[in-house]
Amino acid sequence: PKALWDYDDPIFEFNKAIIDATKPYCVAYKPNLAFYEARGISGWNSLIKTLNYIPKDIFTIADAKRGDIGNTSRLYAQAFFQEMTFDSVTIAPYMGADSVKPFLEFPDKWVVLLALTSNQGAADFQHQELKNDKKLYQQVLETSVAWGTCENMMYVVGATQVSSIGTIRKIVPHHFLLVPGIGAQGGDLNAVSNAGLNQDCGLLLNSSRSILYASSGNDFAAAAAQEAARIQTEMATLLSELSRP
Amino acid sequence: PKALWDYDDPIFEFNKAIIDATKPYCVAYKPNLAFYEARGISGWNSLIKTLNYIPKDIFTIADAKRGDIGNTSRLYAQAFFQEMTFDSVTIAPYMGADSVKPFLEFPDKWVVLLALTSNQGAADFQHQELKNDKKLYQQVLETSVAWGTCENMMYVVGATQVSSIGTIRKIVPHHFLLVPGIGAQGGDLNAVSNAGLNQDCGLLLNSSRSILYASSGNDFAAAAAQEAARIQTEMATLLSELSRP
Repeated sequence: PKALWDYDDPIFEFNKAIIDATKPYCVAYKPNLAFYEARGISGWNSLIKTLNYIPKDIFTIADAKRGDIGNTSRLYAQAFFQEMTFDSVTIAPYMGADSVKPFLEFPDKWVVLLALTSNQGAADFQHQELKNDKKLYQQVLETSVAWGTCENMMYVVGATQVSSIGTIRKIVPHHFLLVPGIGAQGGDLNAVSNAGLNQDCGLLLNSSRSILYASSGNDFAAAAAQEAARIQTEMATLLSELSRP
Repeated sequence: PKALWDYDDPIFEFNKAIIDATKPYCVAYKPNLAFYEARGISGWNSLIKTLNYIPKDIFTIADAKRGDIGNTSRLYAQAFFQEMTFDSVTIAPYMGADSVKPFLEFPDKWVVLLALTSNQGAADFQHQELKNDKKLYQQVLETSVAWGTCENMMYVVGATQVSSIGTIRKIVPHHFLLVPGIGAQGGDLNAVSNAGLNQDCGLLLNSSRSILYASSGNDFAAAAAQEAARIQTEMATLLSELSRP
């Protein structure tokens, strides 16, 4: 929005206004690292200021899709959990156990492992059928579930993958699922909740663009608040139905 | 090494000395992003200074293992190819076509796609057998080969995976393979070359720790040069055998 162009760090001013407007309705914020890296050092400064501005009782997710051999993953974990102070980071599973486990060694920090993503390309490999009749994403869930616990690991399951959420819930009944793709990517809140809610809720539903870009005018923060409130209300209704005897 | 501790940016001073010492023997440098990210803004500054110090005729690889949905991968590509000026970046394939293709839209830039990595965890998913009798890494090669060309795409194949390099060469006879794991990770130069060399060479052999940490004393640069020269001589011998009629 034009109103922000005159600030030294318009990205941070935007984020600050979004956080102020939406924090009554949010349980987590998930900055997407690419958007900051693309701006170089100034982007990293915006990210760090944003992270520090998020209220301490709101969960933070570095959406970074990292993962490398053990000694390197350990450094990524230091980057996100110590140098920055994110509560969790998204991790790609392709390189297997030793690429993920170093992140699990940090107390009170979480791995959010990619299982079944919201994009078209998910069909290329994640849906490949293995000799053992499982699809790759099922194998990723079954193998990785032994690496951590319900208290330090959750899984990314795209909101566009509703038909697979039932299968996923059978493999990981108690884990939290981070579900991106509600809104701009076409995921449906009701359908995802019906398929994915468990007795503890178990869903972290992510809406990014539909909130951030609710308005491109100077009323962007008010529009973001309205959209966040709308989703929160919908989610509260679904949760109250769940808790009914 | 202690001799560097008094500099403002010891990391950059170390890299500068390593580059000066090894550039007669190297065709590429591959900074590992995690080691810089773990140091925050100061790490990014060291990385950018290092990248700018590498002679322009030497190929640069951002070892970053990125990959996300299309609109996000596009931003990562901007980060590595425009904001920084790397020639190539390593990419994880789990999210499929639209997570990789945005990187291929940048002229004269390269994707280095993970196929079969050098770590133990490679066995967890990359070696899984699919219903079609292929292993996952073979499917990754076969599917992704249509996304780019031999001129903008190469593949990561760990030096510890010698027994699979023959299979890989049948699927991608003409692509360059980036082979990490020579040296500290236990990969053998001779065995890898025998299995992987093609008529245009086709191998980018990576040795990191055995060169960088050849000595932990103040003679580290001379020791690195010696180790780099040793590997280069070995490689030159192998290549001269290849070009004999």
